[in-house]
Amino acid sequence: MGHKTKGTNAERQIIHMFFDTGEWAVCRSAGSGSAPLPNPDIVVGSSKRGRVLAIECKSVKSDFKYLTDEDIKQLDDFSNTFGAEAWFAIRFDKRGWYFLRSESLEKSSGSSFVVTLDFAKKNGLTFEELIAIDRKMKA
Amino acid sequence: MGHKTKGTNAERQIIHMFFDTGEWAVCRSAGSGSAPLPNPDIVVGSSKRGRVLAIECKSVKSDFKYLTDEDIKQLDDFSNTFGAEAWFAIRFDKRGWYFLRSESLEKSSGSSFVVTLDFAKKNGLTFEELIAIDRKMKA
Repeated sequence: MGHKTKGTNAERQIIHMFFDTGEWAVCRSAGSGSAPLPNPDIVVGSSKRGRVLAIECKSVKSDFKYLTDEDIKQLDDFSNTFGAEAWFAIRFDKRGWYFLRSESLEKSSGSSFVVTLDFAKKNGLTFEELIAIDRKMKA
Repeated sequence: MGHKTKGTNAERQIIHMFFDTGEWAVCRSAGSGSAPLPNPDIVVGSSKRGRVLAIECKSVKSDFKYLTDEDIKQLDDFSNTFGAEAWFAIRFDKRGWYFLRSESLEKSSGSSFVVTLDFAKKNGLTFEELIAIDRKMKA
């Protein structure tokens, strides 16, 4: 299975996860060729939760994923303009999905960030944790 | 030029109109095959304006455009779940774009709505009028 196909399957899996909650609607992006500026893989919204999330999906077989400054800047720029929360969704093969806010990522060396599985477990959210956040909920 | 290509060009034109304002970010949908449920052609957001719009784009050569109950229901369902305003964008050849809220559409006969150019001029907004609305503005 090619890199592109794998990425698309990961996206499709996330789309179904959101859809199956019954509380989220999903716009899957047609891709970078179609828009004047880079945009994230999916944008999801929930009127019930009062939230909009811009999500860049990554899938890796190893225990770590490199993200470049550019990956993070592009997601942040889009999210700031749109008015969305910026999230990276990383699927570690057979160990599931972790969701990380771009500001939680630690610079490793030069212009890239490394997200290890350990880091993701400590600093990321599972899907269930991610969608449990409710902007409309009173504390 | 085929129907599909024409639709895509109309979408692309709208995307650039939003992008050129510098205040909106755009997610162009990958299309109905990729998501569990129908979704609109584009979803745009502006943190500056405090708004998210779900937009279904139509392009016609004639002076009218038929929209079915199903067209409207699909856009409304998505928008209600996402937390977005539901808009139809109709481009009448050589006479420009008009933006109409689904609730402004009048039932014509049976299960379809007809949007004439006259109706669109009376009840729709131009692009400039559409984006001038500001949810963050105090009256």
